[in-house]
Order: sequence, then C-alpha cells, then structure tokens
Amino acid sequence: MKLDVYFTPGELADGDLADRVVVIIDVLRATSTIVEALANGARAVIPAPGIDEAVRLRRDLGPEDVLLCGERGGRTIEGFDLGNSPASFTAERVSGKLLVMTTTNGTEALLAASPAKQALIASLLNLDAVAAALAEAAGPTTVLCAGRRGRFALEDALCAGMLVDRLRQALDAEPEFDDAAKLAARLGRSAAKSPEKILEQTAAAANLKQIGHADDVSFCAAVDRHSLVPRLVDRQIRVP
Amino acid sequence: MKLDVYFTPGELADGDLADRVVVIIDVLRATSTIVEALANGARAVIPAPGIDEAVRLRRDLGPEDVLLCGERGGRTIEGFDLGNSPASFTAERVSGKLLVMTTTNGTEALLAASPAKQALIASLLNLDAVAAALAEAAGPTTVLCAGRRGRFALEDALCAGMLVDRLRQALDAEPEFDDAAKLAARLGRSAAKSPEKILEQTAAAANLKQIGHADDVSFCAAVDRHSLVPRLVDRQIRVP
Repeated sequence: MKLDVYFTPGELADGDLADRVVVIIDVLRATSTIVEALANGARAVIPAPGIDEAVRLRRDLGPEDVLLCGERGGRTIEGFDLGNSPASFTAERVSGKLLVMTTTNGTEALLAASPAKQALIASLLNLDAVAAALAEAAGPTTVLCAGRRGRFALEDALCAGMLVDRLRQALDAEPEFDDAAKLAARLGRSAAKSPEKILEQTAAAANLKQIGHADDVSFCAAVDRHSLVPRLVDRQIRVP
Repeated sequence: MKLDVYFTPGELADGDLADRVVVIIDVLRATSTIVEALANGARAVIPAPGIDEAVRLRRDLGPEDVLLCGERGGRTIEGFDLGNSPASFTAERVSGKLLVMTTTNGTEALLAASPAKQALIASLLNLDAVAAALAEAAGPTTVLCAGRRGRFALEDALCAGMLVDRLRQALDAEPEFDDAAKLAARLGRSAAKSPEKILEQTAAAANLKQIGHADDVSFCAAVDRHSLVPRLVDRQIRVP
C-alpha cells in the first residue's frame, strides 16, 4: 500500500490525487471542529472558499436550517453564527443543522481534495477510526495537511504521523511511505504518548492563546474522543 | 535570533526572504556538488534556470573557461561537460573554471533566493562552516530546502535539521524556531550520528541507485568534508 504525506496543499500537482484515498487534516482547528460538529448531530458541513460564497450558500440552501461558521485570523467572522472553536459546536447548537464553513487553511485543503476517489476527514479526535477506514480501503493513500498560510504546520504533521504509524501497525504488509510519510511517522511514534506537548509548541497554538482561544488547543488534543469518519462527497462532509 | 525552515520553495510568499540570511540546501545533489566544485578550485558556479539559458550563458561568458554542468532526471544533459555527481568535479576538471549549472530542483531554489540579504550554500559537506557563518551573522535566517519536484525531500530536511541543531548549540541565546525548524531539529538531533542511514532511505537516493549513481549518496553524506561557505552574489556562487 502506497502512502504519501503532503505537508501543504501547495505541494500538489495536477493529477496527484486521482484514484487515491485522501485524508484531509487541519488539527487547529477546522477538521477537529468538523469531527466534533458531526459527532454532535450536525447533518453536514459544507466548506466554502470565501465569506461571500458562504453567505450565498446559506441563502441558496434556505437559511432556517443553516448555520454560518468560520474564522479569519482565528476570530469568528462578523455576522456568523459560530467561529471555529470545536467546543462551541455543541449538540444544542448544531444538531440537525447544515453548517456552511469557511476557514483560513482548512477550507483550501478540503476543496483541493475534490479530485480524490475518496476524501476522509481526520483530526486527533478521530484518529483510530480513520486509521481503520484506511486499512480497510487498502488503496493508494495521500494524507493532505492543511498547513498554515501556505507553510508547514507542526500540528498537522503530528496528526499525519500518528495516523500513518497506527495504519502501519494495522496492516499486514509494510506500507510504502514517501519521504514526508517517513518523517511524519518518526514524529508520530516519538510523540504518541504526549501529543498535547507538541501542539502547545506550534505557531497556531501561540496565535490561539494570543486571541483568547487557548482552551481549543487541549480540546483538539483529545485523541480518539470520537469514532466517526466524516467523508467529503459532492462538496458536502457527512458521516455516511 | 529567528530561524525558519522552508521544506520546499513552493512555501515562499513574496517578501519572505527580504532582509534575511538565506541558506539553500539540495543535498542530493546540487549544493553538495557546488561545495565540492568550489573546494576543488572552480572560480564560480552560475545557476541557470534551463538548458537553453545555460548554453547561452556559456556563449556570452566566452566558452574557453566555461564548463556546462547539470542533469535532468538525474542524468547528465546531452552535450554537457559534467553531470551532477560531486565526485566528478575534481580539481583536474574544474580548477580555474566557471561552471554553468542547471539541475531539476537545486537551481530553482538558488534562483528563488535572490531577494535575500545574504545567500549561503549548504550541504552535509560543509555543515559546520555554515553553522559558524550563521552564528556570526546572527540575523533572521531562513533555511530553504530545494525539495524534489515541488515535494518535501527527507535529505534536505535532515541537513536543515542538523544545521539548525548545530546553530542552536553555537548560540548563546535560544533561537526562535518556526514549526518546520522544530521538526527538522528533532530529526537532525536524532540522526546526527548516522545521517547516511537517513539518506539511504530517501526517494532521491532510490532514483540515484536506479540510474547507476549509488556512490553519490555516500559521497554526499560526508559531513564536514570541507570548511568553506559558498555565497550567491549577483547570480554567481563563489567562496569570498
């Protein structure tokens, strides 16, 4: 089984994702929030590239069931119902709702994954469930990290690394890692017992602390809090 | 001292390198070859973006002193004097010569570094010398890995990591690492005793073995074989 890791969407070339199972990771915070929202009963999350598109999508979908969610610079967008703090996506707020979401980094990675054969959403919150789904799919797999403003993000590499290391343990035959998967797996193995320590050192965590969202970091470090595997199909993320 | 690592030139945004000391790394093989060639008395290495530009540069510079060097897919370019195997850049071949060089990955990174305040060439062959030069410059520093066809390359991350880890030891105050520098430093620290083992695992090494250049891998793993620091000034790489 071939397994590649892309540390940023900028590494993608045309055709890289065709016929592959793709896993999208944005630990701080988009994919953590998506997992939490769907676990709390949201019907679907619909990624939107920009604020205007998000507003238009809500209008087109009929506004009564739709919540607008997202951030810019980490902060809730003015006029939106929710930001990007996973803890605020409670069952009370999101159960039965469609969530239209636009974020700085995660949305770009989600939209870049559309050529994939299958697209799965991963975070530390649902790590084992995604590893099991990948082991079952057993096809060529690409782990796509959202990164941060086009740059490498350590929290995504950590999650990718813990995922590929667990996947390796779940498979009968040794998977064929690319260079980035090899480095990520080293990190994942060495940090598996205390991922929160690594998260705390990241630039994204520093920004969240600065704008008053320090609690999100420990929330997003709760490994295997849920066991669902959201999938992106026809531009909507759902739990099948 | 701020220290950033870019795993690929694709992570660069406009203005990222202004007022910074930039270190360019392409371990397999461009920057290793440049260090070896200059150590063996080449006057300068002039990176050219493509084959046509390289041929034109030789014509403009006057062909008698100029050697055309470079590869595509790892193989010597037809009609060129030398490929990109560092061991072939002996004093007999290169002493006193100007080398016009075009390679798949290294050249792009070298040309991308032109907005930098200073641009230094690093490889495992001259690691300590570059670390010392950076400690002396003591300004904001960016380590720019060439990567491989737009993707992450483990050998460059290893060299970047060993470099920033040595630099940290050489400085009085703890440098301020970005996310990628943190991960690279972990790798550099853990692999410092046997960098060749990591090099052997890379996709670039696999390709070199396949095309009959396996010896280049161990050549490029010879840490601190030289103590010179080539610099890129006005599009020419020289030892000042």
